[in-house]
Amino acid sequence: MDKVKIIEVKESIFADNNKEADRIREELKKEKTFLLNLMSSPGSGKTTLLMRTIEALKDELRIGVMEADIDSAVDAEKIAATGVRSIQLHTGGMCHLDAGMTEHGLKELGTKDLDLVVLENVGNLVCPAEFDTGAVKNAMILSVPEGHDKPLKYPLIFTVCDVLIINKIDVMPYFDFDLEKVREYAHMRNPNLKIFPVSAKTGEGMDAWTNWLKQQVNEWNNT
Amino acid sequence: MDKVKIIEVKESIFADNNKEADRIREELKKEKTFLLNLMSSPGSGKTTLLMRTIEALKDELRIGVMEADIDSAVDAEKIAATGVRSIQLHTGGMCHLDAGMTEHGLKELGTKDLDLVVLENVGNLVCPAEFDTGAVKNAMILSVPEGHDKPLKYPLIFTVCDVLIINKIDVMPYFDFDLEKVREYAHMRNPNLKIFPVSAKTGEGMDAWTNWLKQQVNEWNNT
Repeated sequence: MDKVKIIEVKESIFADNNKEADRIREELKKEKTFLLNLMSSPGSGKTTLLMRTIEALKDELRIGVMEADIDSAVDAEKIAATGVRSIQLHTGGMCHLDAGMTEHGLKELGTKDLDLVVLENVGNLVCPAEFDTGAVKNAMILSVPEGHDKPLKYPLIFTVCDVLIINKIDVMPYFDFDLEKVREYAHMRNPNLKIFPVSAKTGEGMDAWTNWLKQQVNEWNNT
Repeated sequence: MDKVKIIEVKESIFADNNKEADRIREELKKEKTFLLNLMSSPGSGKTTLLMRTIEALKDELRIGVMEADIDSAVDAEKIAATGVRSIQLHTGGMCHLDAGMTEHGLKELGTKDLDLVVLENVGNLVCPAEFDTGAVKNAMILSVPEGHDKPLKYPLIFTVCDVLIINKIDVMPYFDFDLEKVREYAHMRNPNLKIFPVSAKTGEGMDAWTNWLKQQVNEWNNT
């Protein structure tokens, strides 16, 4: 398997994370690069979904990926195999990325020639939601086996996200998961949340998600 | 549904969390009460597993439960329905419990007449692993849909746990999950880790887990 570049990122020195995040967005806007922050629990299928998303969009968009993990490079190696530029960010035990860590990653990745950069955040529904990374949009994945009560238990992440991708709908028959309830609970937290039920494994629903993403990228980069 | 007592716990004032945790264990030892800290990702089936564990042991042990969550009381209400004493700890956005927060909960629950207290920690594989809560043993649940690579990506929690419960083995046919690999990876992190594959839903494997727990409780309380 391809070896990938591993970057050790450290907690930011910036006192005002939000200001730093705004600065990152300004830079990205000038460069015509869209940054997506992808969050979820461990094991929700982030990397598989990302691989399918890359396959769907890589002929139309120049894509780069930053894989954040406490340890290991297993995800970045999988992403590198899709042919897009990919780096691994090691957080040294930290449970989230802040704007400064993201900026460090963006510099190491190199973004000038990219239309879309995806930051795969640390698998965690709590802490990543508290830090603006400088992303243009925040997306989260909730997988069917995790259950439909998660918006009740992890409110903040549903509030800060623009998009909720409900993954692993292919295994819905084997779990007590109520899609209407998750819509209701999630919209209680955030009435504007876009929701895409998908199976990254079978491909079901993926077009709606990738079309939405492509449209967002084109709007950001061309207006 | 029964209303449960909800306690707002705040980050500890104790500078030395480990010292405070040791003090909690000393108190528990005197009282003959065993504290189990149960950790996992969101949606791994912690509450269902706990309900089945209570059903198996409640005639032999006097059990109490502290449900930690950022928001909501859905889990504590389910546990209360099993007939054991249960309180809900709200962490106010915090991603973990420390020893001081645990002690606050133990006082509110009242432990003198209990043999076993289970702390259901916040659903998170990262932050809870960093704080000794004062528990006698740490257990974690990894569910089959999360994948067998988790010990590579979240090393600390596998290192600090005494027990790994692999839940949802009933859905193994629908997922790419290699039980032997997870054993290998987990034992790389912690050669002493006890591993119990179970399905809290069907009951498969639950006896081995509950027998182990009962034995641990009896050893702690009677020696």
